Amino acid sequence: MLKALCMRLAHLGLSAHFVFDMTTPPITSKDLLVASAGPGGFSTVDAICSVARSHGGRVLLLTAQPETGSSVRHANVVAYVAAQTMADDGGGEKSRTLLPMGSVYEGAMFVLFEMVVFKLGEVLGESPEAIRARHTNLE
Amino acid sequence: MLKALCMRLAHLGLSAHFVFDMTTPPITSKDLLVASAGPGGFSTVDAICSVARSHGGRVLLLTAQPETGSSVRHANVVAYVAAQTMADDGGGEKSRTLLPMGSVYEGAMFVLFEMVVFKLGEVLGESPEAIRARHTNLE
Amino acid sequence: MLKALCMRLAHLGLSAHFVFDMTTPPITSKDLLVASAGPGGFSTVDAICSVARSHGGRVLLLTAQPETGSSVRHANVVAYVAAQTMADDGGGEKSRTLLPMGSVYEGAMFVLFEMVVFKLGEVLGESPEAIRARHTNLE
Amino acid sequence: MLKALCMRLAHLGLSAHFVFDMTTPPITSKDLLVASAGPGGFSTVDAICSVARSHGGRVLLLTAQPETGSSVRHANVVAYVAAQTMADDGGGEKSRTLLPMGSVYEGAMFVLFEMVVFKLGEVLGESPEAIRARHTNLE
Repeated sequence: MLKALCMRLAHLGLSAHFVFDMTTPPITSKDLLVASAGPGGFSTVDAICSVARSHGGRVLLLTAQPETGSSVRHANVVAYVAAQTMADDGGGEKSRTLLPMGSVYEGAMFVLFEMVVFKLGEVLGESPEAIRARHTNLE
Repeated sequence: MLKALCMRLAHLGLSAHFVFDMTTPPITSKDLLVASAGPGGFSTVDAICSVARSHGGRVLLLTAQPETGSSVRHANVVAYVAAQTMADDGGGEKSRTLLPMGSVYEGAMFVLFEMVVFKLGEVLGESPEAIRARHTNLE
Repeated sequence: MLKALCMRLAHLGLSAHFVFDMTTPPITSKDLLVASAGPGGFSTVDAICSVARSHGGRVLLLTAQPETGSSVRHANVVAYVAAQTMADDGGGEKSRTLLPMGSVYEGAMFVLFEMVVFKLGEVLGESPEAIRARHTNLE
Repeated sequence: MLKALCMRLAHLGLSAHFVFDMTTPPITSKDLLVASAGPGGFSTVDAICSVARSHGGRVLLLTAQPETGSSVRHANVVAYVAAQTMADDGGGEKSRTLLPMGSVYEGAMFVLFEMVVFKLGEVLGESPEAIRARHTNLE
């Protein structure tokens, strides 16, 4: 879902980059890192957030576990996405749930990001034509 | 969304591979290629579907434009996802829609794939524990 | 190897983008697509080159098979990399070669791209400090 | 270069997976993680190596800085690749070197991996035909 968000931020004309893409520049104190750790912490998320902070970047962490997660320590701001993740899906109990593991969290992020991008487009005054024109034709 | 589907099919214990991943084997007549072209056709989707067919693979195409799309030609089976895409979102007209471009189509695929994976888990008799145990710890 | 080239072009301060990365903009008549098809043609390379041309982009194709490859048709300029690829490695004969399949071609591209980037840095007058400062710290 | 190695290990019929690919399974005590940190340490490499160790996996680290790097701490075995990296390329001094930053290290890994794959193919008794037949046709 972060990949989709990144693409849509670029459509808005913002200087957005996906970590691990080839042309991602170094993070500076002018940048915001948007990270997600549904269950509260992943070692790689902790690592990237820590590097971002040490270079002066600000970190927004999306998580369903704002109390207990290790990644929260690295965040300037925490966005609490109240949704089931692998941390509290019953750990593989016998009865099947319709949306197991992190699926509810992923769906919640999909809706959240669409809302954020809509509001952001309004604030930036970007027309639908301008947004559409930034979508790649190499697909 | 196809990446998420691929991961969940692997969680079910199926031999699933994502095109362009490093370890994806050649497609054979025993394999099914699941492709998606919301607006009906992309040159790269056409190319991959065509290669798959020429090696005997079967092709399932998801699209919102089953009548007019170029990718339909390459499919053995077409799944019609009745949702707005870039092909019919108004082409960038003045009024902003809440879910522009291909967002509705993406959301529809999210829901569809969750349903497919749920049903498939039932058919295969895979327990939640078994599914969860196949999720990578390298994250 | 194209991924490495793309990163180094971005290090030089050029507006370089990798096809399929999240933030890649549409190609225009001001852009050059650098593509590679060692054995002369791949369906996906043909597809991307064709799209690039239809939007006015120029296409540089690297190949070891400039006479017979399908991708050559789509190129404005062809760079002939005289190296063994899967097209002429003996097709899997019994005796093992030290560098099988496309390995020689990959190695040749590595050397070629380093030379191109070195010359380009000279022409652009980019200092080693400036180049290094563009390398991402998010790793 | 690790991506190329991973593909070639899969060509040899080994159960090889690239970290962050969609279908990568959890690491277990039967697995070997091959990691690379030319300058000695990256936060993400440290993170992945640490996770691998905590699940019983063995870690082989390739580095040009076996004495000072942070990633060495996480490795069971260290392979010393004696080549210039960003840690000792002069830090961006005025005079341009032909192979700046990590280019020598990348080239050294290219040669090393080809040699490893050649030897491994010999040991495993994999014929060129068998190796070639595992190369994907979806490209």
